[in-house]
Parts: sequence; structure tokens; C-alpha cells
Amino acid sequence: MEEKQRIIVVGAGPVGSLAALYAANRGHDVEIYELRSDLRDPSTTPLNFTRSINLALSERGINAMRHAGQPKLIDHVMGATIPMRGRMLHLRKRNGGLAEESQDYDAHGRSILAIDRGGLNKRLLDILEEMPNVKFFFNHKLTRADLEKNKAWFHVREADSSVQVDFDLMIGADGAHSAVRQQMMKFTRMDYSQQYIDTLWCEFQIQPRENGSEADPNNKFRISPNHLHIWPGRNFMFIAIPSEDGSFTCTLFAPPAVFAELEADLKGSQLVEFFDKFFPGVTSHIPPPELIASFQQNPHLPLINIKCKPHHFSSSAVVVGDAAHAMVPFYGQGMNAGLEDVRILFNTLDKYATTEAGTTPASRRALALNEYTAVRTPDAFAINDLALQNYVEMRASVLSTSYRLRKAIEEALSVYVPWLGWQTKYSRVSFGNEPYSLVVAKSEHQAVLITRFSALATFGGAGLG
Amino acid sequence: MEEKQRIIVVGAGPVGSLAALYAANRGHDVEIYELRSDLRDPSTTPLNFTRSINLALSERGINAMRHAGQPKLIDHVMGATIPMRGRMLHLRKRNGGLAEESQDYDAHGRSILAIDRGGLNKRLLDILEEMPNVKFFFNHKLTRADLEKNKAWFHVREADSSVQVDFDLMIGADGAHSAVRQQMMKFTRMDYSQQYIDTLWCEFQIQPRENGSEADPNNKFRISPNHLHIWPGRNFMFIAIPSEDGSFTCTLFAPPAVFAELEADLKGSQLVEFFDKFFPGVTSHIPPPELIASFQQNPHLPLINIKCKPHHFSSSAVVVGDAAHAMVPFYGQGMNAGLEDVRILFNTLDKYATTEAGTTPASRRALALNEYTAVRTPDAFAINDLALQNYVEMRASVLSTSYRLRKAIEEALSVYVPWLGWQTKYSRVSFGNEPYSLVVAKSEHQAVLITRFSALATFGGAGLG
Repeated sequence: MEEKQRIIVVGAGPVGSLAALYAANRGHDVEIYELRSDLRDPSTTPLNFTRSINLALSERGINAMRHAGQPKLIDHVMGATIPMRGRMLHLRKRNGGLAEESQDYDAHGRSILAIDRGGLNKRLLDILEEMPNVKFFFNHKLTRADLEKNKAWFHVREADSSVQVDFDLMIGADGAHSAVRQQMMKFTRMDYSQQYIDTLWCEFQIQPRENGSEADPNNKFRISPNHLHIWPGRNFMFIAIPSEDGSFTCTLFAPPAVFAELEADLKGSQLVEFFDKFFPGVTSHIPPPELIASFQQNPHLPLINIKCKPHHFSSSAVVVGDAAHAMVPFYGQGMNAGLEDVRILFNTLDKYATTEAGTTPASRRALALNEYTAVRTPDAFAINDLALQNYVEMRASVLSTSYRLRKAIEEALSVYVPWLGWQTKYSRVSFGNEPYSLVVAKSEHQAVLITRFSALATFGGAGLG
Repeated sequence: MEEKQRIIVVGAGPVGSLAALYAANRGHDVEIYELRSDLRDPSTTPLNFTRSINLALSERGINAMRHAGQPKLIDHVMGATIPMRGRMLHLRKRNGGLAEESQDYDAHGRSILAIDRGGLNKRLLDILEEMPNVKFFFNHKLTRADLEKNKAWFHVREADSSVQVDFDLMIGADGAHSAVRQQMMKFTRMDYSQQYIDTLWCEFQIQPRENGSEADPNNKFRISPNHLHIWPGRNFMFIAIPSEDGSFTCTLFAPPAVFAELEADLKGSQLVEFFDKFFPGVTSHIPPPELIASFQQNPHLPLINIKCKPHHFSSSAVVVGDAAHAMVPFYGQGMNAGLEDVRILFNTLDKYATTEAGTTPASRRALALNEYTAVRTPDAFAINDLALQNYVEMRASVLSTSYRLRKAIEEALSVYVPWLGWQTKYSRVSFGNEPYSLVVAKSEHQAVLITRFSALATFGGAGLG
């Protein structure tokens, strides 16, 4: 068993909270520092709108929580989710009518889960609150760190003063604009890139039906609750994710130039026309005045892609989640990858925890963090790239015949010839726990085989129908 | 004529000083803020060793100074340079003896110029000192900027206090770790990447001969003063650049792993062996004890490649030089590109300076800075990439037959068929003023032609000798 260490976690979002939980379960002294106030405090303004309210939770995130040593956590979390078994594409038929097309995510019927970010976060904080070796420090902003001397300084908002904190290990789970990463860059030669994607996003809501549906008065959902709804617009996209109260949280993704054009029309009639043209049916779920109000009141936010290497410095600091690999939301893996970081980080720390002659806790942590960077950065780069590529898939490729054909062939192989171990890339990412970089490698290999198989089938006249 | 503006320049290196000179010549109120103390102050510790002492000045840098409105500047600067007309490769012959091979930079005999960074910097500061509309603020560190409200805050080292400064335009010439760029990133969605190259560097000196050479008692240079000397080591490299006092400033470039191995040998005999094996003749110019002392006392420093876009924010801030595009030193273009930034920036500001109805100085500056980013970022990316590629050329390709062949063919075309406008890439970069991105495009075009021509010549049996 490893000696007790002083571990500070910067950032009390879902990823930081899970990291604190893992550390606390190992008996360490844990302190959580959070820039904002406690989101459970009723006087706190609701979560700022710079992060999406709804998230897709899938196997990697669940698996990370499964290993947190808190069986109740999983039960509670899972109880507050809505399974989405596939995409529901909303299209316009040639004759002008509306059409829906369901594309299941998985040939074996597995679903991803819609979950409320705030609810998950609160649940994790509640569990941490009960642990004797965990302390919270809200309204604390990291201003400086000496990672050679294991000291950090936080500005305390209420007191307008600075406090100095000593630690053995600082875990930065403080998001895309991470202050921990910023401090690490002063101590290590970090390769770093940030890239803004040529897309902005804005949130909308589809309200629940007041009286349920005709068939079922308890069903308040206006569209299928068990799908992630997509209105693919080729160059832009509108999506909807279900919430427990019967509403849907919706997001418009479009290039800044499109936003600028729509913003210029102050009355909003152009916005309604734009929706009716490219996202058929939406205005029957969101009344135009509400659509216009949301567009004008909710922020229009950018998307950023961040890669960095290393993810750690020496034995004293490591970044996880968006702080290490902020990604675009199109694979629904951002939070899942962050939660998986925590599982892999602590697995690696455990591996080096055995006391051996001539080693110290710090020297063992240094080895563990070094291995963590070596193992995890290729996977972080891989899922960042996949997330970018999936934007094209969601808004355009889903409509193409070749995409549908490949999906059908792969699913058939997966179901009818299970011993081949064939799986779609989507299934490997969302329903498995293999390293992301391995998923990419396997998927590339499968692509070669599929191409050969298709050629064979075509030239052999097998008829794939 | 443009209205008088308040322009602050952050960074008093060569690029910042030239920017201040351009601004002052246009009648603006100019203030220069520099983190360090005045390098002309004799009590100031010599320039820190994080930048190389010697630089290669070439056409782009000269041209930028030519347009600074100070005829004396060019005369004075040029008087303190040493022309280097080519590379001198130092090799070992098959029989073990030493060989030198000179490769001229230009078929038309043009040279690049070795110059002392400190001397050039002092000359620029002296000229600025005489201008009534320029003020200096040394020991001032930028801590924060509000680029929407055109305010900046500097920490004053001596007084340990903070001052607030108003400005119309802030020009950031504050190097690779630019504080101005850092502040800009809070206001604009900047794509940014920094990458550490797998190479460290360390400086050495070849001392002048005490009594000159036998042939000329005034010639204190131990090796040719009119060359940039290269000991190409394939995976590493040693270079020497002449100084006016007869010495040479030398640099070892090698991967960190090689440095680590050499550092581990505290007596330094491995270092001497390493030099004798890969850099033949060096230890006859630098006595081994001096070589070892330099390696142990001088810092071992990293190389960084930085790209960012945009280079400006609105009408209030712009970065130039290393702050915008730190590059590796292998094309000798770092400072030249920075000085050229200044010329192009003020050209662009001038273009939009004409007062027109409905415009303000700020709205015209916003247009100019927008154009500056659009025009300059492709060139900044191009020279960054060229500089990286040239490391391979300097340490390895110079030795290859195909490299020598292409150089010979291109130079022959340039000299004997001048109306073709044929020039080597090196000549276009170092002796011309075409945009870097255009140089790359033309060079790629020439490469295609050369390949065709070589094939023709070979298959046609023309014999290129």
C-alpha cells in the first residue's frame, strides 16, 4: 500500500470530482480547489452556458465510475440517464413531406446514455462531501505554482487574498483554458496546439408536452426519447438530446459566417426561414418566437481542439480531461475520455505504488506519470482527431449511400460472424474500453478488408442489396 | 497624413526598436517598454545567453532598415558586418586528413552578413534616444492588458509597483514567450501551436589569433572570415560565425539524448572524443580544456517553433518577430523575418491612413491589421517550415550528390540563362524580398522542372558531369 499523500485537484467538474474520489479511496488527503462557487448552493447562478447541459455517457465513462469504489454511484448515475439507441435523422422527402430515419448505434442493441451534466456533478460532490479525507475550497483561483517545490497559490475571491498550498501531486482538471497546464508550461517543454474550429454553437430547448401524448399521458417527449436527433444540413447541423423532464436540449452548429448573417436580421424571420429550409420540422417543436429568443439570448460559442504533450511534469503535476485534450463534441466522448483518464492515471499510479528499496513516493510517482504520458497521449490525440472527423459524418456522411452500405456490411459481419470480432469504429469507441489509438488502427485495418470485400462482392456479382 | 497616435512597443530588441523607429518617423507618440534593463547601461549584466550572440543579416532585414527613414542607420550597420559568401564545409577525407569545401550561397556572388546582435540593438536604441517623440521604460513587465479598452498594466521592478498605460496601438515584439500574445489570446480566438524540436544547442568560442597570421599580421581569424563554417554531423552539427574582433561564435546542435550522454561524463574526455570524431579540426581551434569549460558553463538550450493566427486583435494590438513566429535558426531568417514584419506592418498601416468620411483612426487601423494578418501569416508559416527543413539540409543534405547536382544546375541556369529568372530557393529567401510563401511556390515549380530536365538529360545521355 502506498504512503498517504497530499493530492490537490484543481477543478470540481465531473472529471476533477472523479479524480478526487479515486484519490480519496486510496486513503490520501485530498483537497479540491474550484474557481466557481459550489454548484449545489441554491444562491449560485446556474452553470454558465459555456458548456453543454446534456452529455452522452458511454462505456468508458461508466467503466471509470465503476472502478471508483462506490457501488452506489453507478446505480444512482444510471438511474438518471435516458438510453439513446441510435441517431434519428430528420429529413425532407422529395415530395416536401417530413421523413425520419433511425440508424442504430450498435448492431448488438447497446445504447449511449443522455445525462444531465449538473446532476452527475452534484452526485459526485455529494459522495465526496461524506468522505472524511476530502476538503472543498470553492471560489479559489489558481494564480501560480512552483512545481519544483510543490507549492501552489490560490486567490480567494471572498477574502480578496492569496493562500499558499503545499502538495505532493496536483491534478489539473480545470478545463480547456486550464491554469494548471499554463503553470506546467513554465516548467516543462510542452508541445502544445490549440485550434478553433470554423463552427459556432448555440443552445435551444424543445419543451415537454404539457399533457403527454394521446397514447400515453405520461409521455411528455415531443419526439422519440431514445434517440439522438440529428437534422443534418451538410454545412451545418441541429441536434437534440433528451432530458428526464421530457424536454430536449438542442444545439445549432454552423460556420461563423452563417451565424453572422442570422445575427444581422434583428427580427429573426431569416432564422425561422433558415430552420424551415434546412432543419425540417423543428419549428413545429420550438415555436418561432421561442426559437428567435433563444438565438438572441443564448451565447454563440466557439469550439476548440487542444493537444498537448507531455500531460505531466516530474512527480508533481498532471492534467486530465479537457485540460489535457479539449475536443469538439461530435463523438460524445469529451467527458468519457476525461473520466477514463482518471481510471488510467490511478491504475498507473497503483502499478508503481509498491515500496521498493531506493525509491521514494516522489520517484515512484515520477515513473508513473512518465508512463501515463507515454500511454495516454496517443489515445488523446486519436480521440481528438476522431471527434473532428465525426462532424463530417454527422452532418453529411450519414446521408450517403456508401456510408450506409459500409455500416450495414460491418454490422452484418458483427452479428452473423461474431467470432471474427468485427465491430464498427463507433461501437469500439462508445461501447468498448480499448485504447482509442488501437481502435483507430483496427478500424483502418477493417477499412482495407471492407474495400476488398466490397470489390469482390461487386465484381463477383454477389449483390449486396 | 494620419493623425498622431499613441503607440506602445513591448520589447526593445532589434525588431521592437525598428518598430518604434517606423512609428516615430510617422510622427506618433512612441513608448517602448522593456522587461530587462537597458543593455547599453554598463552595470547591466551582458545579454542573457538565451539568444545567440551572432546573427546573419540578409536582404530582408537590410531592406526593412533601408525604409526606416534613417540613412545613417544602414551605413553604420553595414560597417559593422562581415560578409559570408558561402558555407565552408569541414570534412574528413578517406585517408583521415582534413578537407574543406566551400559552397557559395549565390551564383551572383551575393553574401549574407554576420552581425553582432548587441551592437545592432545598441545602434537602434541610440537613434531612438535622439528622437523627441520616443520614450523608454526599462524594467517594465507587461502583466495585463485590456485590449477592448486600450489599457495595459506594467509591473515596475525597481518601485515594485504597477503602472497603467493607455494606448491606441500596442506592438508586441517581446519574443517567443510573448506576454502581448498571451494577452491577445484572451481577446481573440487564436489558433496557436508551439513545438519543441528534438535538438538542444550550446555556444562555444574560437578565439582570435593573438598575432595574426603569418601572411597578414592583421588577420586574426583562425579560419576563413568570409564563410559560415559547418561541420555537418548528419544527426548533429557544429557551426561557426565570424565576429569583428577575429573570433568566431560557434554552436553545437544535437539531440537531447546526445547532450545527456556528454553531460554524464564530468571530466569531458568524451566530449573531446565526440568532437574529434564528428567535427574534425575543431579541437585545433578550441583547446580541449576550453571546449569542456564552455560545454559545462554555457546553458544547453531548447529550440521552439511557434505559429499563430491571427497576428492582431481588432485595432489595438499586433505581434511581430518571434512573438508571432519564433523559428529554428537554420535559415538565418529569424531576425530578418521580424524586421520585414515591421516594414510590411507599417506599409499596410500607411495604406489605410488616408482620412475618409465615416472612418476613424481606430476603424482604419482595424482594417489595416486585418489585412496584415491575412497577408503575413502565410509567409510566417512558410519561413517557419523552411527553417525546420534547412536543418536537414545543413547537417546532412549538403553532403549528398543529388543536392550538389541540383544546386549546380540551378546556379548554371541562373547565370547563363538569366532571362529565365531562375534562382535557387536560398537566393530568393536570403537575397530577395518576395513573400516567403511565393518563394516556396516558385521553388516547388522549379523542382518539378528540374526533375524533368534531369530525367531528360540522363535519358538523353547529355551527361551532366
